[in-house]
Amino acid sequence: MRLPVPLPKSYRLLNHGPTVLVSSAHGDRRNVMAAAWSMPLDFDPPKIAVVIDKQTLTRELVDASGEFVLNVPTRALAKATVQVGSNSGRDGDKFAEYGLATFAGSKVAAPLLEGCVGWLECRVIQEPHNQSRYDLFIGEVVAAWAEAEAFKDGHWQPEADLRSIHYIAGGAFFETGKGFQVDAE
Amino acid sequence: MRLPVPLPKSYRLLNHGPTVLVSSAHGDRRNVMAAAWSMPLDFDPPKIAVVIDKQTLTRELVDASGEFVLNVPTRALAKATVQVGSNSGRDGDKFAEYGLATFAGSKVAAPLLEGCVGWLECRVIQEPHNQSRYDLFIGEVVAAWAEAEAFKDGHWQPEADLRSIHYIAGGAFFETGKGFQVDAE
Repeated sequence: MRLPVPLPKSYRLLNHGPTVLVSSAHGDRRNVMAAAWSMPLDFDPPKIAVVIDKQTLTRELVDASGEFVLNVPTRALAKATVQVGSNSGRDGDKFAEYGLATFAGSKVAAPLLEGCVGWLECRVIQEPHNQSRYDLFIGEVVAAWAEAEAFKDGHWQPEADLRSIHYIAGGAFFETGKGFQVDAE
Repeated sequence: MRLPVPLPKSYRLLNHGPTVLVSSAHGDRRNVMAAAWSMPLDFDPPKIAVVIDKQTLTRELVDASGEFVLNVPTRALAKATVQVGSNSGRDGDKFAEYGLATFAGSKVAAPLLEGCVGWLECRVIQEPHNQSRYDLFIGEVVAAWAEAEAFKDGHWQPEADLRSIHYIAGGAFFETGKGFQVDAE
């Protein structure tokens, strides 16, 4: 069951460093790519940072629309994550090619990917110098969602079978492992 | 055994999203804090991004020195990670208080923390607008090191007992889990 995540808790979907899929749309074009380089940037209003290379179709669609979605995939989508990270949407629709189903978000036109455990709908905060020099985009999170089995009441469920994934390189990932609690007293 | 990491591979120390400890020094002052919000930003020359709050002593030392180190801790340092993330170095030397041993880096004066599995020595690329508006720092990685048991020849060792950690919130972490390989063909 997919539930909304209160915006001030939405940073937690990224806080542990998962690899994400960046989806985008403009007019009748849409795309999805993989990004290991994203992070939270602020709590409230929530902001995130993500690197979107100049040469990608995603960049073109994000520049045109001012919007994107960060989708947090699970291991079932690991192969698709590598595939959409290795191929360009300019060569054909990646959703069709890799069998990726989508659903509509609430605040942005970019599609949300089925089978993920978290979704952050984002609007670009225009910072042309960062975008041009570093391919660095800052987004305000305007809506967030999570699969309740994996994340609910503002918390990842440490024993859930549905887990995010963490990209290393060359098709290699780490799974998110066991949760543990530290008493800092 | 600690080995140098070739700079173009150093992004891999952060690519999977571990929580890091940010160490800093200026004159005879030094500090360490925790940061869940960091990411690679470029391959070669390698750059990283990290959020350093304005109110921290770390910020003062980084602003004064133009340098910092990102240390990648293991579970053995999880309690210390929460402690140095919850207390200010203005109230006393956190290295002494939490029993954190250090060693010297090769390019920066900030201390490197014993017991970590990766170290990124960084020099700030001055971006005053990002620093002021978003607490966002961009650093060039000028030297990198890894514990060979955990990371060698440019690769994390997926079966190593020494693993990085991923902060959730409220003293809760995920361990880095099992490594797995995807064939994207």
